[in-house]
Amino acid sequence: MTIRIGILGYGNLGRGIECAVKQNNDMELAAVFTRRDPSTVHILTESATVAHVDSIPDWKDQIDILILCGGSATDLPEQTPKYAQWFNVVDSFDTHARIPEHFANVDAAAKASGKIGIISVGWDPGMFSLNRLYANAVLPDGQDYTFWGKGVSQGHSDAIRRIPGVKNAKQYTVPVDEALAAVRAGENPQLTTRQKHTRDCYVVLEEGADAAQIEETIKTMPNYFADYDTTVHFISEEELARDHSGIPHGGFVLRCGQTGWNGEHKHIIEYNLKLDSNPEFTSSVITAYARAAYRLAQEGQTGCKTVFDIAPVYLSAMSPEEMRAKLL
Amino acid sequence: MTIRIGILGYGNLGRGIECAVKQNNDMELAAVFTRRDPSTVHILTESATVAHVDSIPDWKDQIDILILCGGSATDLPEQTPKYAQWFNVVDSFDTHARIPEHFANVDAAAKASGKIGIISVGWDPGMFSLNRLYANAVLPDGQDYTFWGKGVSQGHSDAIRRIPGVKNAKQYTVPVDEALAAVRAGENPQLTTRQKHTRDCYVVLEEGADAAQIEETIKTMPNYFADYDTTVHFISEEELARDHSGIPHGGFVLRCGQTGWNGEHKHIIEYNLKLDSNPEFTSSVITAYARAAYRLAQEGQTGCKTVFDIAPVYLSAMSPEEMRAKLL
Repeated sequence: MTIRIGILGYGNLGRGIECAVKQNNDMELAAVFTRRDPSTVHILTESATVAHVDSIPDWKDQIDILILCGGSATDLPEQTPKYAQWFNVVDSFDTHARIPEHFANVDAAAKASGKIGIISVGWDPGMFSLNRLYANAVLPDGQDYTFWGKGVSQGHSDAIRRIPGVKNAKQYTVPVDEALAAVRAGENPQLTTRQKHTRDCYVVLEEGADAAQIEETIKTMPNYFADYDTTVHFISEEELARDHSGIPHGGFVLRCGQTGWNGEHKHIIEYNLKLDSNPEFTSSVITAYARAAYRLAQEGQTGCKTVFDIAPVYLSAMSPEEMRAKLL
Repeated sequence: MTIRIGILGYGNLGRGIECAVKQNNDMELAAVFTRRDPSTVHILTESATVAHVDSIPDWKDQIDILILCGGSATDLPEQTPKYAQWFNVVDSFDTHARIPEHFANVDAAAKASGKIGIISVGWDPGMFSLNRLYANAVLPDGQDYTFWGKGVSQGHSDAIRRIPGVKNAKQYTVPVDEALAAVRAGENPQLTTRQKHTRDCYVVLEEGADAAQIEETIKTMPNYFADYDTTVHFISEEELARDHSGIPHGGFVLRCGQTGWNGEHKHIIEYNLKLDSNPEFTSSVITAYARAAYRLAQEGQTGCKTVFDIAPVYLSAMSPEEMRAKLL
């Protein structure tokens, strides 16, 4: 059986899903749905259709899993419950604070339609969450640490671009080596925001813009930069294109815990990612969970799930026997 | 509901389980079963009973999960299927090559009795296996690496102790820094056995033993040492007790994979452990899976499971709502 995938939204994430589907022999891309004029959207998969999102209900018997590639701020809260009426859906909803509400909405919609909805799939939330859960279950007495980077933060880059006089910008979140080293050494440090990450900004100015003023505006921006040690580099548009066009990211999840009758032994569990392409890696995780969604649906399960609810066996194209022989 | 735990076998692992149970408020240790005279076995938990293993069937309604703490060579292949006739069981069977056979035996026994048996729980097999599976599912095109150490290998230490003239010995398996660095740098190296690990041996000689001869015997021992760069240090019994009485271990699981339409982006997933006490960490993993076994049994599930078959949500004492709010 080939799992027929649909993609809603063809930005970086949608393109990443398309590439990931190509790497998985048990899947094929059936269609990409867009809010734009379909004739203007050019995809890579020759066998797949580009269709307008309004036609999506017509596809309900031709697609096994619809992957929602919209944004968490406004798209997914509306889209995931809506499309769960016709499809098994997977999204990468990443507004941590609003996950309980999103879960409830998707659960109600998917239970009503008899479909599966898997939400908040990616690396954080996603693989990082899994590692926090496993590490907490194994070491109940301990302390968690998450560091992000080195990687591009889209939100922080956008915040710089909104400053008058800024033509373009890219912001990297960078974990502080000393903080990471202290955690790895089992020192259980209490770390402030400033001690955990620094922010590196590469900024292209409009002609005649006041560099000193813009640097000050960035460094004192509340929430985004004021609580961090921020470095601002002014570069040309050419340098930005040449040296900063990628979308790398990554990070570290650590738990340091104690065991023994009197907590006398220390253990450190670390999970880390170094990603050349944030959207492609996120897409790869989503695609593995699309396989899980397909299998859960085949079993007749319904409602909303997260990575916590899904046994690892559902993710792999291998048979359980092969997994036990090769990976256990 | 308190999960009532039984332990069969009170060596390092059994003692580790006892400590881990103390850290988990939803569990209590009911009894430790031993093949020795129970009056000679002194446990730490005042409220628990020490009983002879022959009396174990009498306990079948007083224990929810029996944790088997025997060895993989001869104990567990016999014990896990046997005790699955009376109890939900968890073991740490770690002979990778014989897992399929052990799985089949435990599955048949547990299905016949209507119990759950979770096998091969610990860190390798166990947490390392999970990380291999997740990483392979997410990055289907890539290469896996596992490094062990720095840590004590009981099997290799025993092999040295069997050499005539050796009074005592401890062997550390050490990952080679350069190999690990090459993997982390995304170089996808092809590594020989010798390139991945070195072996460090601390040996106490019997009086009058021939050090040079023993060093040669160790370094040329087939399977155990001949394929490795091995260092032998001769030390006194006092030094061994002072500097080498711990049982630390750990290791690294890495996968380097490619994504993109033409595999143009590289990603590295790393999981690593630094453990002060190998048996206590293994015990902590087993104890989390004892909780899963209890919940699976409550649901009426039966048969043999591995870490692959169990959704993460089963491991944590938190409610699903709390997990989603705090860990996702």
